Amino acid sequence: MSERMKVVMKNHRERGAVLTEKEIPKIGPREILVKVLATSICGTDLHIYKWDQWSQRRIKPPLVLGHEFAGEVVEVGNEVENIKVGDVVSAETHIVCEVCELCRTGNAHLCKDTKILGVDTQGTFAEYVALPAVNAWVNPKGVDPAYLSIQEPLGNAVQTLLAGEIIGKTVAVVGCGPIGIFAVAVAKAVGAAKVIALEVNDYRLNLAKELGADVIINPKLEDPIIKVLEETEGLGVDVVAEMSGNPTALKESLKYVKLGGRVSLLGIPAEEVSIDIANDVVFKGITLQGIVGRKMYQTWYQVKGLIQSGRLNLAPVVTHRLPLEEFQNAFELMERGQCGKVVLYPDPKILEQYK
Amino acid sequence: MSERMKVVMKNHRERGAVLTEKEIPKIGPREILVKVLATSICGTDLHIYKWDQWSQRRIKPPLVLGHEFAGEVVEVGNEVENIKVGDVVSAETHIVCEVCELCRTGNAHLCKDTKILGVDTQGTFAEYVALPAVNAWVNPKGVDPAYLSIQEPLGNAVQTLLAGEIIGKTVAVVGCGPIGIFAVAVAKAVGAAKVIALEVNDYRLNLAKELGADVIINPKLEDPIIKVLEETEGLGVDVVAEMSGNPTALKESLKYVKLGGRVSLLGIPAEEVSIDIANDVVFKGITLQGIVGRKMYQTWYQVKGLIQSGRLNLAPVVTHRLPLEEFQNAFELMERGQCGKVVLYPDPKILEQYK
Amino acid sequence: MSERMKVVMKNHRERGAVLTEKEIPKIGPREILVKVLATSICGTDLHIYKWDQWSQRRIKPPLVLGHEFAGEVVEVGNEVENIKVGDVVSAETHIVCEVCELCRTGNAHLCKDTKILGVDTQGTFAEYVALPAVNAWVNPKGVDPAYLSIQEPLGNAVQTLLAGEIIGKTVAVVGCGPIGIFAVAVAKAVGAAKVIALEVNDYRLNLAKELGADVIINPKLEDPIIKVLEETEGLGVDVVAEMSGNPTALKESLKYVKLGGRVSLLGIPAEEVSIDIANDVVFKGITLQGIVGRKMYQTWYQVKGLIQSGRLNLAPVVTHRLPLEEFQNAFELMERGQCGKVVLYPDPKILEQYK
Amino acid sequence: MSERMKVVMKNHRERGAVLTEKEIPKIGPREILVKVLATSICGTDLHIYKWDQWSQRRIKPPLVLGHEFAGEVVEVGNEVENIKVGDVVSAETHIVCEVCELCRTGNAHLCKDTKILGVDTQGTFAEYVALPAVNAWVNPKGVDPAYLSIQEPLGNAVQTLLAGEIIGKTVAVVGCGPIGIFAVAVAKAVGAAKVIALEVNDYRLNLAKELGADVIINPKLEDPIIKVLEETEGLGVDVVAEMSGNPTALKESLKYVKLGGRVSLLGIPAEEVSIDIANDVVFKGITLQGIVGRKMYQTWYQVKGLIQSGRLNLAPVVTHRLPLEEFQNAFELMERGQCGKVVLYPDPKILEQYK
Repeated sequence: MSERMKVVMKNHRERGAVLTEKEIPKIGPREILVKVLATSICGTDLHIYKWDQWSQRRIKPPLVLGHEFAGEVVEVGNEVENIKVGDVVSAETHIVCEVCELCRTGNAHLCKDTKILGVDTQGTFAEYVALPAVNAWVNPKGVDPAYLSIQEPLGNAVQTLLAGEIIGKTVAVVGCGPIGIFAVAVAKAVGAAKVIALEVNDYRLNLAKELGADVIINPKLEDPIIKVLEETEGLGVDVVAEMSGNPTALKESLKYVKLGGRVSLLGIPAEEVSIDIANDVVFKGITLQGIVGRKMYQTWYQVKGLIQSGRLNLAPVVTHRLPLEEFQNAFELMERGQCGKVVLYPDPKILEQYK
Repeated sequence: MSERMKVVMKNHRERGAVLTEKEIPKIGPREILVKVLATSICGTDLHIYKWDQWSQRRIKPPLVLGHEFAGEVVEVGNEVENIKVGDVVSAETHIVCEVCELCRTGNAHLCKDTKILGVDTQGTFAEYVALPAVNAWVNPKGVDPAYLSIQEPLGNAVQTLLAGEIIGKTVAVVGCGPIGIFAVAVAKAVGAAKVIALEVNDYRLNLAKELGADVIINPKLEDPIIKVLEETEGLGVDVVAEMSGNPTALKESLKYVKLGGRVSLLGIPAEEVSIDIANDVVFKGITLQGIVGRKMYQTWYQVKGLIQSGRLNLAPVVTHRLPLEEFQNAFELMERGQCGKVVLYPDPKILEQYK
Repeated sequence: MSERMKVVMKNHRERGAVLTEKEIPKIGPREILVKVLATSICGTDLHIYKWDQWSQRRIKPPLVLGHEFAGEVVEVGNEVENIKVGDVVSAETHIVCEVCELCRTGNAHLCKDTKILGVDTQGTFAEYVALPAVNAWVNPKGVDPAYLSIQEPLGNAVQTLLAGEIIGKTVAVVGCGPIGIFAVAVAKAVGAAKVIALEVNDYRLNLAKELGADVIINPKLEDPIIKVLEETEGLGVDVVAEMSGNPTALKESLKYVKLGGRVSLLGIPAEEVSIDIANDVVFKGITLQGIVGRKMYQTWYQVKGLIQSGRLNLAPVVTHRLPLEEFQNAFELMERGQCGKVVLYPDPKILEQYK
Repeated sequence: MSERMKVVMKNHRERGAVLTEKEIPKIGPREILVKVLATSICGTDLHIYKWDQWSQRRIKPPLVLGHEFAGEVVEVGNEVENIKVGDVVSAETHIVCEVCELCRTGNAHLCKDTKILGVDTQGTFAEYVALPAVNAWVNPKGVDPAYLSIQEPLGNAVQTLLAGEIIGKTVAVVGCGPIGIFAVAVAKAVGAAKVIALEVNDYRLNLAKELGADVIINPKLEDPIIKVLEETEGLGVDVVAEMSGNPTALKESLKYVKLGGRVSLLGIPAEEVSIDIANDVVFKGITLQGIVGRKMYQTWYQVKGLIQSGRLNLAPVVTHRLPLEEFQNAFELMERGQCGKVVLYPDPKILEQYK
C-alpha cells in the first residue's frame, strides 16, 4: 500500500478541519490496520469541527476526526488472534483499560481510563486507521458498509431503549437527531406498543415518521404534555428515551412519563436542570438512568441480533453519501439538521458501488 | 334474556361431551354475567373431552367446558365497580385467593387455591358465563372477538418468551401446536434474531412458517441438534421455548441451547425425563424455567401492548370458525392436529359477522 | 367493649392535636376492628401536627392521626376470611383500588386512588382502629408490639436499599432520621461492604453508629464528598440511600456515588433541585430512583424474612415509649430530633408490660 | 531465587501424587510469577488425586496440582501494568479467551476455550506458580493467606446463592462439603431468613451448624422433605443451593422448594437424574440454574465486599493447616470428609506464622 493517505484533520485550536495527507499508521503487536470503506459523521465530530467548549477542553490537535466506520483489515499485529486480514470490521470506539473494577463488572463503557477513537486517538476520516484488535467488531460480509458504519450510534439507541423493559410498552423518543431516529426504529422492531416521537425540526420529525413512529409531536406547535397524555389514555408513557439534551424537554418528559416509568437519558444538557424531585421523581416512583456509550459488548450483540431479525428499518436513516473530500458539505448538512446520517467514503470506487 | 341457554357439557365420567340446555347462571355481588361472543378451544378442553388420566383425577362432571373467550357484559353484581354492562371482556381463567404469599408477591398464577374456569367452575362453551369481576379483562371495542378470545393462550406464549431476554436473541420453538405458533409470532414481533420452529406435524410446521419462523425443522426428517447448531454458527440458540412436552424433544433442546442460555418449559411431559444435569445443565450454565399460566396481570398488559404494536401477525392462527353446535367437529380437528385455533360461536349471527 | 374510645385528633386547620373521645368505629363486611397495642410516630404525623403546607393541602380535619401500629383483632366483617379475631396485625397503610394497571402489575404503591391510613382515613392514635382486612398483615405472636409497629417505616428502608443490588456493596445513608437509621441496620444485615451514615444531628448520627454504621460523617464538620471518596478508595459508594430530602445533600451524593451506581431517593425535597445531568448523571451512567411506600406486599415479606434472619438490630431504634396521653411530649421529641422511634400506648397495661 | 522448587505432581496416569522438584517457571510478557504462601485443597484436586473417570479424560500428566491459593508476586512480565512485585494475589483459575461472545457478554466463566489452573496448566501446590496477569486478584495486605486462598471456592458459593433473590429468603443448602459450608456462611451474612443445612456426614453437618445454619438435617436420620416443609410453614424453601451432586438429594429438593422458587445447581451428579418435569418444574413454576465457576469478575467483587462487611464467619471453615510435604495426609482427610478446608504451606515459616 502507498505510504501516505488522505485524512480529514483538525490541525489548529479553532473551528473547522482540513483535508490533508498523513503517514499511514504503523501498528503494534496487538493492533490491526484497516482500510476505511465508509465512515459516518457523529454529533461529536460536529462538536469538534465547530470547536465548542467541550472540544476546547478535550481535544488536542492535530487530530484525524471520525470514529463511526466500517473497513477491511489489511494488516494484523503478530499477537492478534481474533482478527484476520480480509475481515470487514467496525469498531467499539471506547478503548478501555480492561482491568479496573468497572471494566471487570460489565461497566467497561464507564472506565475512567477510556480513550475514544477520533477524540483521543487518530480517527477514521482517513483512508486507513489503526485499532486495538480487541476493539474490532467483525461484520458479516457482503453488507453495505454504510450500514455497518452506523452500528456504533445505533448501539447508543439500543442501549438506551433496552436499559429496562420495552416490549409492549409505550415509548416517547425525545429529540430525533440520528440517534433518536434510530431509537424510533429500534422501538418498533422490538414490539413497543406505541412510539411517540418529539422533535422541533420538521425534516427530522418526518424522518421519525418514516422510520415508524406512531405519533409525531412538534413541541413548538403542540403542548407535548397534553398530547402525550392524550395518546396514552391519560397515563403517560412507560419509557422516555431522552435524546435531545434540552432541559425543557427533559422536564416535560417527567410530567408525561407514567407512574413507575423510566426516563433514560442519553442527551447531554449544556446546563444544570432544575427538577421537582418530590413530585416528579419520588412520588411518581420513576427511574432516571444516565446512558453513555454501549455495553461492551452486550450492546453489539443486541445490534447484530436486531439487524438479523429483519425487523429493523434502517435504509431511510442514511440520507447522504459523499466522498471524503466533501466533508465540509457534510458538516454543513449536519449543522442545519437537514439530514439523517451522512456517510463519507475515502475511496470513490466504494462510493460508486453503493450510491 | 331467556332463562335457559345452550351449553356444551361433560355429564359423565367418560370420553365425549354433549350439547344441552342449562339455567343461565345467577351472579353474586362481585360477579358479572357475560354473553359469550366467541370461545376458542384449548388443549385442556381436548384433554377433558378425551377423558385422559389428568381429567379423571381433576374433573367433576357435570361441567360446562371452555375457558378461552370474549363476550359482552350483560349484568354486573352490586359491588362491582371496575366493569360495566356493555363492556367486551375476556377472562383471566385462574381464579385465585388474592391473599396468600404467592398472590401478594407477583406469583398469583401459582396460588395453591386456584380454581380454573371451565375446569373447576362452569365454563364458556355456553351462551352465558358468570365470572368474578376481578377476573375480567376489558377489551377495546370493535375487534373481532375471535382475536380477543385467543389472548388467553397467547398470554402463555408471551409469558414463556418474555420470562428472560429475548430481543435480538436466537430462539427455538419446540412444538407448534397453537401456543407454539403464537410463540413464533411473538418472537418475531419482539425482534428475535432468528426463530427456529420444530414440529413433527407438517400442517403445523407450515403454519409456523406462515407466522414468520425463519427456519422450520421436522425432527422426523432431520436431526434437530445438527440442524439447530448449523443455523446458529455452531453456538446453539439463546432461548428454547419448550411447548411440546415431548421428553426426547426436551432432552435434545438441552444439547442445542447455547452455553448460558435458557430453556423455558410450558409443555407437560407425561412421564419423568432423564436429564444429564452435569453436562447439559451445570457445565453449560443454563437455566430451566417452569412456566404456567400467565402473570396476573403483567402478561395481559404485555399481550395488549404487543397487539397495539401492530407487529403481531395473528390472522393465520385462527384457522376454523364454527357454530357451538359443531363442537364435535372441532374436537376432531384438534385431535388430528389439522388446525391452528378453532373458535366456536354460540350465536350464529356473530359467526356470520366475522366468518 | 366500651362504645367510646380515646383518640388523638386534629380537629382544626391549625398546629396541634388534642386528646379526646370518639365512637369506636363500626366495620363493613370486608373490614376488621383492631385494638391498638402500640402505635409509633412517623414524620408524616409530625407534618400534620405542625400543619405544614403539605398538610394544609391534603388533610381534612377532624382526623385521628397515626398509621404505624400493631394491634389485636377484636372483630371481623362477615366476608373476611384471611383474618380472625385474636390475630395480632399491623397494617399496610396504603389502601388501594386493586384493579388499575398499577395495582395489577406490582406497582400498587403508586395507585392513583390510594388512601392512606391516618391521612385520608381515621388513624391509629386511638384505642381502636377499623381497617380493610386486605390491608392487615398478620404478625407472629409473642413479639413486643413496638417492633411490630415499626415494620411499616422499616419497610420504607427495605424498599429503598433493596431496589437494586446491595449485597457486598458500599452504601451511603444520607439523613439518619428513623428511616435512615433503619437503613443502616438493614444495610448491615444484608452484608453491605461498608455503611457510611451522613447526618447533621449528632444524636441521630450516634444512633446510626450504634446500629452498625462503619463510618459516620457530620457534613457540618467534614466535607462529605472528600470523606466518602477517602473511605471508598476514591471510587465512591455503589449505593446512595437519600433519606434527607435536603437538596444540597442530594447534589453532593451525585458527586460521591460510584460510576454506574444508584441513588435511591426516599427523602422529599421541599423545593426543586438543580442537577448537573450531563456530568453527574449521563457521563457517570448512574441511576436515580424515586422510592415511595412499600411494594405491596413483597416488601412486607422481605421485612419478615429479615427479622427472622436474626441479623437485624432494631432494639436501639425504639428510644421512647409513652402513654398515648403524652403525645404532645412525643411530638416535641420528634421536633427536636432527640429520638429514634417514639412509640405510644393507648393501654397503660401494655406499656407497663414492655417498658 | 533458587532455580528449582518443591511441587506436588501427578506424574503417571494412576491414583496418587508425589512430592518432587521442578524448574521454577519462566514467565511471558503478560504473566506474573508468584511465591505461594498458602494453597487450599479443592474437591477437584481430590478427583485428580484419586484418578477418577473425569480425571482420566481430562488430565494430562505430568501436572502440578492445585489452584486455590494466595501468594506474593516476585516477578512481572514486561507488558504487565495492573500488578506489581510485592502484591499479594489470588487467582481466578479460569484462563479464558477474552474475545468470544461468551467472554464479551458476562459469561467468560463459560468460555469454550477455558483452561483451568492446576487442571490444564501447572498448578499451585508448589513454591512458585506462573499466571496470566489478567487472572490475578490483588488482595489487601496483612490478611491470613489461608483466608485469601479460599476466596476462590467461596466465590462458587457466592455465585450460587446470589444467582437470584436471597435476602430475607429461606434457603436449603444441600451438601455441606467446603462449598456448602461456605454457602451457609454466605446465606447468613446476607440476611437469609432461615438457613437449613442438609448433609449425611455429621462432622460436616456440625460445621454447618457452627457456621450459622438455623436448622440441620441428616437425611439418613430424618425425612428431608417432611422436615424442610415443617420448618417453612408447609411452603418449602425459596432457594435451594444444591452442592451435593446426589441425584436423590436433588430430586427431593424439587419437592420441598417453594412454588416459584429456585434451585441453583453447583453439585455434579455422576449419572443422569430422572425428573418429574410436569409436577416438579412446570406446575410449580420453579427455576433450575446450572452454576459453574465464578462470574468474571463480578463474583470476586462480591466476595471482597462480603469479607469487608465483617458479617462472614470464615474462621471455622479452615480446619487444617499442613506443610506442603504432608499433602498425602491432607488428601486422606478430604477423602474421609473429616475436615472443612485443608490448607497447605510450601514455606514452613508462613505456616508457623498463622498456625
